Amino acid sequence: MAMTKRRGRYELYYWPFIQGRGEFVRLVLEDSGAEYVDVARLPEDQGGGLGPIVEIMQDHLRHHPAPFAPPILKAGDLVLAQTAVICRFIAEETGLAPATAADRLRADQLMLTVADAVVETHDVHHPISGGLYYEDQKDEAARRAPTFISERLPKYLGYFESVISANSAGKRRCLLGSDATYVDLAVFQLAKGIEYAFPNSFARVAAGTPRLSELVARVDERTRLREYLESDRRIPFNEWGIFRHYPELDGPKTP
Amino acid sequence: MAMTKRRGRYELYYWPFIQGRGEFVRLVLEDSGAEYVDVARLPEDQGGGLGPIVEIMQDHLRHHPAPFAPPILKAGDLVLAQTAVICRFIAEETGLAPATAADRLRADQLMLTVADAVVETHDVHHPISGGLYYEDQKDEAARRAPTFISERLPKYLGYFESVISANSAGKRRCLLGSDATYVDLAVFQLAKGIEYAFPNSFARVAAGTPRLSELVARVDERTRLREYLESDRRIPFNEWGIFRHYPELDGPKTP
Repeated sequence: MAMTKRRGRYELYYWPFIQGRGEFVRLVLEDSGAEYVDVARLPEDQGGGLGPIVEIMQDHLRHHPAPFAPPILKAGDLVLAQTAVICRFIAEETGLAPATAADRLRADQLMLTVADAVVETHDVHHPISGGLYYEDQKDEAARRAPTFISERLPKYLGYFESVISANSAGKRRCLLGSDATYVDLAVFQLAKGIEYAFPNSFARVAAGTPRLSELVARVDERTRLREYLESDRRIPFNEWGIFRHYPELDGPKTP
Repeated sequence: MAMTKRRGRYELYYWPFIQGRGEFVRLVLEDSGAEYVDVARLPEDQGGGLGPIVEIMQDHLRHHPAPFAPPILKAGDLVLAQTAVICRFIAEETGLAPATAADRLRADQLMLTVADAVVETHDVHHPISGGLYYEDQKDEAARRAPTFISERLPKYLGYFESVISANSAGKRRCLLGSDATYVDLAVFQLAKGIEYAFPNSFARVAAGTPRLSELVARVDERTRLREYLESDRRIPFNEWGIFRHYPELDGPKTP
């Protein structure tokens, strides 16, 4: 997939008050050292705020196909939506994707499995409708949480553990091939998010996924990423995003 | 993304009793005229049944990364999972993908929007857990259905209508570029599935999406696809798949 490399910068369009799905994109941009603007986080008199996000989504004639939802990436004339597509695109341009076509397909497969886990985790606190508040669907959330914690969370984290464990080319230090890729960043973010939202349940499962824990610690120490995570560009986890800490939805603390 | 063209056939691994996510793959295989085997639908004494699906998912050492879930495609030595990745791969090999790299990214963006719609539609009848029966979450489903029908269904179908309407290169006859691609097949399947599951609500929305209706009718008439849809290879919609007709979840009939 050879594309002419642009000299210009990337523009990210995403909600400025949450990590959300946009954070998967931010991690790839930051870790690769790419030059980018987080448009909605600019002051409104410099073209920031929510206006530009709404505008780019409504402009079906100038951007075809217009995005269905943020995150949205603008790279020169190209406007892209869908987290997995954007992350793959930036990673392929900046060297964070695997080298071969087959491995790029495999990376995309893993990325979409992360995306599935993100939806399932989000929907624990929003099982009825994304258009309602958590407070309006607390009873249903309380019913969804236990099976998520006991079945899905171990299944997803155990899956990534087994993928790392089977990666002999990477000496069991990354998911795919011999070096970390954008998919390692995505699994890092997924693990951090679940740890924030469900600390007790995460601790119990993570005790049995040592290679995943090592991978998360290793990603956490990557120079550019560490600098980002300590900066005020990293929005703290909060109760408006995907990963929300509602203690009543977490399991009991392991003794 | 140039890959050597294989002479061999594709092998699809998917649940043999439902359309499900595998149907999006089957449509691309059938419409492109590709040679393939729907492995689990073979008799068990010819290597069919559920055994081969379980086997390929558990073999983390031979297939890295092993699939998290079906559908799974085997193409020579390459084993791929995730519906959107598989469909894109086959489409690029068989000529059902757009010609340029940028348009392939855009097609993938649309495909993942279809995938999002599929999850939301499925979860109407399974808002609490995929591990429970519908009968065990009927109350929550009855609460989820109205907002799905009144907000999400019109939003998704209206979105695809606007994408078709803005595609001047395709004379407003397909989603992207001048010819139908695998994404048109996916939107066809999504529309057919929603029409089966929510006939009253679909009819009401479809009255306002004429270009989408035309696209669905046009895909329906494609020679190889029509032959497939009339064959016994097309599993009928049923109440085990993604799109289930539970009349109590549909809205009222438009007078």
